[in-house]
Amino acid sequence: MNYIITIGREFGSGGRELGKRLADELHIPYYDKEILEEVKKRSPYGMTYIEEVSEKRPYSIPTLHFGNSFLYYKDVALEQNIDVHSLQNDILKEIATKSSCIIIGRGADYTLREFKPFNIFVYADMDSKVNRCKSRLKEGENITDKELIKNIKMTDKKRKSFYEFYTGKKWGDKSSYDLMINTSNANIKQMAKNIADLIRDIYKDN
Amino acid sequence: MNYIITIGREFGSGGRELGKRLADELHIPYYDKEILEEVKKRSPYGMTYIEEVSEKRPYSIPTLHFGNSFLYYKDVALEQNIDVHSLQNDILKEIATKSSCIIIGRGADYTLREFKPFNIFVYADMDSKVNRCKSRLKEGENITDKELIKNIKMTDKKRKSFYEFYTGKKWGDKSSYDLMINTSNANIKQMAKNIADLIRDIYKDN
Repeated sequence: MNYIITIGREFGSGGRELGKRLADELHIPYYDKEILEEVKKRSPYGMTYIEEVSEKRPYSIPTLHFGNSFLYYKDVALEQNIDVHSLQNDILKEIATKSSCIIIGRGADYTLREFKPFNIFVYADMDSKVNRCKSRLKEGENITDKELIKNIKMTDKKRKSFYEFYTGKKWGDKSSYDLMINTSNANIKQMAKNIADLIRDIYKDN
Repeated sequence: MNYIITIGREFGSGGRELGKRLADELHIPYYDKEILEEVKKRSPYGMTYIEEVSEKRPYSIPTLHFGNSFLYYKDVALEQNIDVHSLQNDILKEIATKSSCIIIGRGADYTLREFKPFNIFVYADMDSKVNRCKSRLKEGENITDKELIKNIKMTDKKRKSFYEFYTGKKWGDKSSYDLMINTSNANIKQMAKNIADLIRDIYKDN
């Protein structure tokens, strides 16, 4: 059985953990940061830059006008950003062509649409996301709930903006997904088993 | 285990069938039209009227002004509509107080919020909904795809309007649901088994 599964997720909802566990359950490879490593190999860009732009919408500087003439310039920042996105898409398609896979984020549901993937969106209540983020802080790391909420909202705002720019669809809206699951207070290990069963049965019937 | 489960659904998505099968799997009662029968017993209204307004947003006639004076009148249609809704809510709460249950539609996720229900939303692609509606036509019943699509859209428009009027929330938006599932081309019998397992495990952990 060839499973192509994509997972969109709110920051702090446990989408990454769910994806990893789902990959274990279905015995298929899982890709998240691995895609960025591959972009790095194929491009002149450093990891910090790739990480920065890989799920970020590019912003173009408006063209300048002087009287009736245009001041032509190359928007290098924009071109590099689109370059990373394009490489990322090539890699996603290569992965999906080769074998089953679970892809986290990156608008993969849209990039891989010709493969008819099973698209999941993972979300949770803010309290649950804050608690999850707190439980993952490193020792000695200090951050208030207020700051955490600000980070969560900012990250999701970027993801939404990236997704909607490249796909023309609404991030987190049911029209793009086969399954949307709220992980508030959930045991994600058990949830991954149940979702793996559900997906196995759906693939069996189609 | 006390399960309180609500199911919102797009017309033609199989939400009703999923609810019935889920009730069988979990061995708990299922309520849909049964609620209307109970409203009938407790009110002076006929079944046709109750069915007509039970998931419909009421519309008030604007108050008339003559110069500086108001023409007072009782908006009977509005009052009757709200009366049915209020009875419906009382019945939902009585059901949830007594035992486990699955409730279809009626903004039950909001009415029963104090019971912390497990809220499901069922949706599907238009093609799948049209095919489902077609397969349920009575012998000799003739209706074009165009008419079916019009009916599906109109029914969902009413449901959305009803839901948003009484709950102040957005119908079919993830913020109101624990699980949202796309039933396009699905084997709903098998899907109900998988979802029953998922719900059993979520209740076990909470």
